[in-house]
Amino acid sequence: MAELRRDPTTRRWAIIATDRWKRPNDLIKKPGTKAKRACPFDAGSPEIAAATVYPHFTDPDKWKVWVMPNKYPALTYEGMPKTTIKGPFTTINAVGGHEVFVDSAKHSATLAKMKPVEIEAILNGYRERFKFWKDDTRVKYVLIFKNYGQEAGASLVHPHSQLAAIPVVPPTVVEEMEKGERHYKDRKHCIMCDLIRDEIALGQRVAFLNERFIVLCPFASRFPFETMILPRTHGSNFMDITNDDIVALADVMSRLFKRMATLLGDPPFNYLLHVSPQYAPNLRFYHWHIEIIPRMTEVAGFEWGAGVYINPTPPEEAARELGG
Amino acid sequence: MAELRRDPTTRRWAIIATDRWKRPNDLIKKPGTKAKRACPFDAGSPEIAAATVYPHFTDPDKWKVWVMPNKYPALTYEGMPKTTIKGPFTTINAVGGHEVFVDSAKHSATLAKMKPVEIEAILNGYRERFKFWKDDTRVKYVLIFKNYGQEAGASLVHPHSQLAAIPVVPPTVVEEMEKGERHYKDRKHCIMCDLIRDEIALGQRVAFLNERFIVLCPFASRFPFETMILPRTHGSNFMDITNDDIVALADVMSRLFKRMATLLGDPPFNYLLHVSPQYAPNLRFYHWHIEIIPRMTEVAGFEWGAGVYINPTPPEEAARELGG
Repeated sequence: MAELRRDPTTRRWAIIATDRWKRPNDLIKKPGTKAKRACPFDAGSPEIAAATVYPHFTDPDKWKVWVMPNKYPALTYEGMPKTTIKGPFTTINAVGGHEVFVDSAKHSATLAKMKPVEIEAILNGYRERFKFWKDDTRVKYVLIFKNYGQEAGASLVHPHSQLAAIPVVPPTVVEEMEKGERHYKDRKHCIMCDLIRDEIALGQRVAFLNERFIVLCPFASRFPFETMILPRTHGSNFMDITNDDIVALADVMSRLFKRMATLLGDPPFNYLLHVSPQYAPNLRFYHWHIEIIPRMTEVAGFEWGAGVYINPTPPEEAARELGG
Repeated sequence: MAELRRDPTTRRWAIIATDRWKRPNDLIKKPGTKAKRACPFDAGSPEIAAATVYPHFTDPDKWKVWVMPNKYPALTYEGMPKTTIKGPFTTINAVGGHEVFVDSAKHSATLAKMKPVEIEAILNGYRERFKFWKDDTRVKYVLIFKNYGQEAGASLVHPHSQLAAIPVVPPTVVEEMEKGERHYKDRKHCIMCDLIRDEIALGQRVAFLNERFIVLCPFASRFPFETMILPRTHGSNFMDITNDDIVALADVMSRLFKRMATLLGDPPFNYLLHVSPQYAPNLRFYHWHIEIIPRMTEVAGFEWGAGVYINPTPPEEAARELGG
C-alpha cells in the first residue's frame, strides 16, 4: 500500500506509491513505442461498463460522464488511516480514493472543442462525487484536477479528470486558509471577495466575466497565462452549487479553453479545484476557485530552490489577450 | 525592469520578467529550429573574453570557470530595492544579480563525464562568488542552481550553472529556517545534524558518503532518485568551506552524477544550493546542503493542487541503486 510520508526537516508531505510506475502511457513521444491497446475510456470497454454514470441534469440521455477507480492509484479505498511515528519519521498509510472521470464519450474531444453543455456534464459529475465522499470521515480533503497533454502529466489521450480523496489537508489549502482566516479576523471580509471587488475596479487583470463567475489573471502569476476562476458570490464548497451556477461556470470555462487553444496553440495545462476541507464545508474565510496552469515554461532550479516563479508574461498582458 | 510581486491571497512571490522571452534556445526539439549561432560560452566568444575568471586553487592553469551576467536576467544590478504597496498588491523592483557560471571550457562536457578536479573548479567558483556578493546589503539571499537538459529548463548545451542574488529570502529557505529554529529551541541541536546521525544509524537511505559529506535519499522524497548532499560537520554557509571540503564534495558529486547517468540514462536534472541568508551567515540551526532533482516524472495537477508529490520510487530503493 502507498504511504504518505512527512519530511522531518521541512514537514512537506510526499506519497510513495510504487504501483504508479506500472501506468500505461499513450503519450510517449518515441516512435514505435505507442501502445496498441484499446482505450479503457471508450464505449464498450469493461472499465466503462463497470463505471458509475452521472447524466447531465437537463439532458441526461445525450451527455454524461463516467467515474471509475484509478487503475494505478496513489491512494487506496480499504482500511483506516493510521499515523506511525518512528523517531523523526512520520508515515500515514495512504487511505482514501483515487478516481478517474471520463469527461466525454468522444475519444478525441477536448475542452476547447466541447460545447458548454458537455462541460456542464463534467461539472455535474464533480458535484455529485463531492457529495459521494462527504460522509467518509477518513478523508480530510477531496481534490479534483485535470492533466491535459503529456507535458502536464497526462498518460492517456481520452479526455479525463481525476479525484483524490486524501487523509490530510494539503499544504496549499492550509496556506490559503491561514491567510484567509487572518484577513477575515482583521477585516471581517473574505479575502477573495475583497480581491474580486478590487480587480473589477482596476480592470487590468480580468480576462472576462459573466454574472456569476470571473476569470482573473493573478497579480503574482507564476506561469504565463495562468488564470483563476472564482464565483462572484461567496461559497467555500462545490457540493452546494446550483445547476444555474454550473451553466454559468461552463460558459466561462468554455470561453477560456477555446481562447487558450486559439491564442496559445492548444497548450498542455493542469487545472485544479480548491475547496474547503471535508470537515468544514462552509467557511466564511475560504472562497472556492479553479486554478488553470498552462504548461509552456519549464519549472527549473531557481523555482525549486526559491519557491519563487519567474514568469515572462505580465498578467495584465495575459488578461488583455485572453479577453480579446 | 523586472519586478517581484507578492500574491495578496497566498503571499507567494513571483518575478515578472518580460525580457526572459527573448532567450535563445539551443535545445528546442523541433527539427530545423535549432539556432546556428556560435556558443557564447565557447573560448574566443566576446562573452568569455569579458567574463571574470576563477582558476582552480591548486591547478590554476588547467582548470577554471568563467562568470558573466545572464544576458536575459530576471534580476538587475542597478538601483535599490523599493517596496511599493497599492491596496492589497505588494511589488519590489527586482534588484540584485543574475549570473551564469560557465562550468567548463569544453562545450560537450557534463558533470557525469568530468574529472573530480573539474567539479572542484566549479565549486571554487561558487565559493568565490558568494564572497563577492557578501557585502551587498541590497541582497538578502544568494541562490546557486543548475539546470541540466531541456526538461530541467536549460536553454543552452554548454555546461553552466547560475546564481541569483535576490532582495528577499526565498520561502523555501524561510520554511527550512523556521523548522530548524523550532527544533533547535526544543533540542539544542541542528535538525540536519540529528537527521544525519539517524540516517547513518538506520543505513537505509544513505546512497554513499565519505569523511566529510553524505548523500541521502530523503525520507519523503518528492521525485524518483531525488538526493541531498550535506556536510557531515555543521555549517550554514558555503563561503567558509575549505579547499579540503571542496575536494571531498567534488568526490561525492562526481560519484553521484556518474552513477545517475549510468543508472538512469543521463536524465535531466536540477540542483540547488541552500545556504543561510546573506545577513546571517552563521546559524546554528541552519545546515547548508545541495538538493538534486532528476526530472523523470511530470509535476501534474495533483502536485500543483495539493503541494504533495506522488513519487513511485521509495528512497530506500533509490539509495540502494545509487549506492550500488
